[in-house]
Amino acid sequence: MFDNLLADLLQKNETKALLVVSDGIGGTTVNGRTELEAAKTPNLDALARRSSLGLHRPVGYGLTPGSGPGHLSLFGYDPIKNQIGRGILEALGCGMAVKRGDLAVRGNFATMQNGLITDRRAGRIPTEKCAELVAKIRAKVADIDGIEFDIKAAKDYRFAVVFHEPSLKDAVEDADPQQTGLPPRPAVAKNPDSRRSAEVINRFIGAVNEALADEPLANTCLVRGAANSPDILTFEEKYGMSAQGIAVYPMYKGLARLVGMQVPEGLTTLDEEIAWLKRTYNDFDFHFLHFKYTDSAGEDGDFDRKVAMIEAFDAAVPEFVALEPDVLVITGDHATPSSMKLHSWHPVPVLLAGRYAFEDDAKRFTEREAANFGILGQLPAQELMMLVLANCGRLAKFGA
Amino acid sequence: MFDNLLADLLQKNETKALLVVSDGIGGTTVNGRTELEAAKTPNLDALARRSSLGLHRPVGYGLTPGSGPGHLSLFGYDPIKNQIGRGILEALGCGMAVKRGDLAVRGNFATMQNGLITDRRAGRIPTEKCAELVAKIRAKVADIDGIEFDIKAAKDYRFAVVFHEPSLKDAVEDADPQQTGLPPRPAVAKNPDSRRSAEVINRFIGAVNEALADEPLANTCLVRGAANSPDILTFEEKYGMSAQGIAVYPMYKGLARLVGMQVPEGLTTLDEEIAWLKRTYNDFDFHFLHFKYTDSAGEDGDFDRKVAMIEAFDAAVPEFVALEPDVLVITGDHATPSSMKLHSWHPVPVLLAGRYAFEDDAKRFTEREAANFGILGQLPAQELMMLVLANCGRLAKFGA
Repeated sequence: MFDNLLADLLQKNETKALLVVSDGIGGTTVNGRTELEAAKTPNLDALARRSSLGLHRPVGYGLTPGSGPGHLSLFGYDPIKNQIGRGILEALGCGMAVKRGDLAVRGNFATMQNGLITDRRAGRIPTEKCAELVAKIRAKVADIDGIEFDIKAAKDYRFAVVFHEPSLKDAVEDADPQQTGLPPRPAVAKNPDSRRSAEVINRFIGAVNEALADEPLANTCLVRGAANSPDILTFEEKYGMSAQGIAVYPMYKGLARLVGMQVPEGLTTLDEEIAWLKRTYNDFDFHFLHFKYTDSAGEDGDFDRKVAMIEAFDAAVPEFVALEPDVLVITGDHATPSSMKLHSWHPVPVLLAGRYAFEDDAKRFTEREAANFGILGQLPAQELMMLVLANCGRLAKFGA
Repeated sequence: MFDNLLADLLQKNETKALLVVSDGIGGTTVNGRTELEAAKTPNLDALARRSSLGLHRPVGYGLTPGSGPGHLSLFGYDPIKNQIGRGILEALGCGMAVKRGDLAVRGNFATMQNGLITDRRAGRIPTEKCAELVAKIRAKVADIDGIEFDIKAAKDYRFAVVFHEPSLKDAVEDADPQQTGLPPRPAVAKNPDSRRSAEVINRFIGAVNEALADEPLANTCLVRGAANSPDILTFEEKYGMSAQGIAVYPMYKGLARLVGMQVPEGLTTLDEEIAWLKRTYNDFDFHFLHFKYTDSAGEDGDFDRKVAMIEAFDAAVPEFVALEPDVLVITGDHATPSSMKLHSWHPVPVLLAGRYAFEDDAKRFTEREAANFGILGQLPAQELMMLVLANCGRLAKFGA
């Protein structure tokens, strides 16, 4: 119902929005202050003074989101209804293109001798060997029963496969005996709708066995985590805004692609991301830009490095402001308190700047200032896109 | 679906949580201040400085909860989906054990002459006489048609009955003619599923009539408020935490039992409750402790006595802190403003202390400080348990 309401109210205009996600930027207090409070952030401070602040809950009270649900929420999709299964996640992490309805699986290269699995990791072959095996399969196997597929090496002995056929459903048990000394276990459908998927996966395994028959270690594969990509509208279908996602890491590029954003390849630093953003600023209505290192420092439990990463991020803020987007949102996809070395459930500060943004009393971009003075209050992350659209003038009046 | 999500994310560890409910502790302003603001609460103040504060809505905006929904919400159950009918409430108030699916009714002893009800309250017999009649019934009636039941005297001429048979459904009209001079009205099922319940209730009335045939006043009974106990998971099933409920008054012991908590008997003061808590602290993962007198004073409309009761409660706070629970939550089940002499809909302050709790700027445990500075914001009471679990490290990450 909500999507219909949204569709009914959407109106087009020339506005542009920029969503900048500093991954895991929120935290909790250590000796009374968070990383954001400890950091020197003159640019964020100046922006906060003329913005609306608030705190968002990525998924729900007490729920700690992974990167998938954290970003889906920021993009305005229900992260509980649209869960991202293991196969899809592995494919995204490998930087593979995943389209609506695709079926993805993760695989291990493994060793089979005399019809028994003798090593579930093929002697823990290195990533380079894995890539070589994947290329060998790719060269020998064009499709599975007419179904196009992509295959890509992940880390070590792992790889991911995406089958581009939306009729393939994901209720398939793992094709993995789980222990050595047993014969391979074929994929089995959990219900009739997924029989064709099990068949395709088993044919894929057969094709791999044939392609790798002369390999001493990696002569078969185990396949797990069958998952369909969420059946969701693209970002542009949902909001009427053309969109791109600018990120360095494959996972975030994959998540942007999952909602149909255009994604540039080959960027390796924040400077390069910003240079790309500037160059392509006129080409899209909506830009999502992802900065990773606040999260990395938090996950390492390094308070001081997280502070330094926040300061590095702060230094880039004038570049975002200089583009004069109609709406600029700065936030995180979740908190990553360095005291926990993990993602967490804590609410995440969010800043919204724009012509019609209320200039509240929050003077810094911190959790505390947002809690004490933020006019946005606490809100579900999923609602942020509604505020973006409204501040862009892209939502018509509801009712007369 | 949400309960499945919760079940999927739960993980076990050795943490302990303590939920202390000071009944009706919230209020509204009288001459500009609430009872909590007027009270001297050095211990709560000190704790508030290192805790996260917020305001919870027990059931919903504008909704004034009874004790039942107030506590079910704090325990994380939906108080609207899981309503507690009159029969169950009376049984809980009598201190009876109520299990999932039980059918409970409330009764009046009454006088019947020549086939007509001549007094619906049997001359308002005193509680002692009521207990004597209940004992007489209990001695003569072992079961109703093979169904085990418990019966207990309430106040004056009232009693409660619990039938331990989960197939008995509660759509049964009151067996009460509502006025004197009429013949007794049998229980009538409102739908076919409850026919057996009506039959059992009518047989129960028949058995009472027989057992009390020689009583001059209380020679029959009227039966009302047939209600099934809510069909809910126990607290331990829902959260994977063993739990006890420590309370003085039967109603709160009954509510704790309703969700499957262990409940000690015979405690009569806060000191005894705390002594019990200390003695059994290692025996449970979760402890709920109930303090009644803040509510009583509020219901009496006595601002100063409510202040004094808050101060008495404050004096006990160091005992809770000394146990060093991983998560300590202090709150009320609803507000009871002394200016209203009633429960109210006002949001209730809540304090959450723990290793990962954000130390916000709230310096006192008051409604105002929570509103101005509380990082928890305003939240549904039902979500508090999610924060307890998260702060205990008992919820795995959602999605990768």
